[in-house]
Amino acid sequence: MKTSITAEPVNRLINEFSRLPGIGPKSAARLAYFILRGGEHEARSLAEAIVDVKERIGLCSECFNLSERDPCPICSDPERDRSLICVVEEPLDVIALDRTNEYSGLYHVLHGAISPVDGVGPDQIRVHELVERVRSAEKIEEVILATNPNIEGDATAMYIARQLAQFGVKVTRPASGLPVGGDLEYADEVTLGRALSGRRAL
Amino acid sequence: MKTSITAEPVNRLINEFSRLPGIGPKSAARLAYFILRGGEHEARSLAEAIVDVKERIGLCSECFNLSERDPCPICSDPERDRSLICVVEEPLDVIALDRTNEYSGLYHVLHGAISPVDGVGPDQIRVHELVERVRSAEKIEEVILATNPNIEGDATAMYIARQLAQFGVKVTRPASGLPVGGDLEYADEVTLGRALSGRRAL
Repeated sequence: MKTSITAEPVNRLINEFSRLPGIGPKSAARLAYFILRGGEHEARSLAEAIVDVKERIGLCSECFNLSERDPCPICSDPERDRSLICVVEEPLDVIALDRTNEYSGLYHVLHGAISPVDGVGPDQIRVHELVERVRSAEKIEEVILATNPNIEGDATAMYIARQLAQFGVKVTRPASGLPVGGDLEYADEVTLGRALSGRRAL
Repeated sequence: MKTSITAEPVNRLINEFSRLPGIGPKSAARLAYFILRGGEHEARSLAEAIVDVKERIGLCSECFNLSERDPCPICSDPERDRSLICVVEEPLDVIALDRTNEYSGLYHVLHGAISPVDGVGPDQIRVHELVERVRSAEKIEEVILATNPNIEGDATAMYIARQLAQFGVKVTRPASGLPVGGDLEYADEVTLGRALSGRRAL
């Protein structure tokens, strides 16, 4: 039998990288050898950033977005339109929406979507906190349900809409349709169908 | 002007991940949020593995492969065939070759390939160390130049072959040809050409 040719610390790092999403065993090995080839300082800097982010970042107690401060910069920004709440599944969605410059209201991060198949019910995500927020706030006029345009996101939006019906706020959902810049012939039939049924007069 | 909505530690981690090979800004953000969502223990474990690998892994002074010990487990393995040296560009190549179970000789890791375009000459890689190794060793009969089958790898192999000519050792290069399990119609013309010119009698 031949001896193991990869040193234990290298194997361990490859295993650690493999646990990250979208990183298979080959990418993990490439990343590990990149770290090995790179400088001591760069490796330390990455390691520190990983530990640091866990130590310094928490959830905003109002919108449940990830933040260093509580309330977060968005919730404490006086320039923001406090009559609007945009409900999203993940913190990354907040960044994506804010980059559009089409929205300057507040957010609410659910941290997931209702998915009975995966055992995720309304109690596992921040739905209750949203309902309480709408109940206790004075100025909220509209809640935009920007959960993902898939089965789980649609189900979550439907559930939340029913929960919010009692408060008389406007509840909306972003339009589904063809991606801008995309080719019609490459659109899947569901997207194309939604784009047609949601057509608008010019 | 709107306030920055991503906390500094999160931005820093996204930047650190973006520096890794094959990780773009979107993947980096996904990785950062994965770390944020995950457990404290998992984050620490990844950070430790990164620091650990830099602290504990060095180069084998004989073959220049990455190793925790010097000489490395391969160079110090009495079962290995010491009359054969397989020359590769990167440590990952050693793992790939050893997995084939077709080879049980020694290795020599160049840590790169000659590439005048990128400013990499013979002095920037471990060519000199290879020549000295062949000169001083007694039993070496064959040096297999398993640098990558591309322009840089071919040039490096040619250069090394010239350097080793004086020692009267056999210098070989792995066959180029069709990948096993691949489809002939999908092979590029260079590969197909090499497969034809290297054809063997059955």
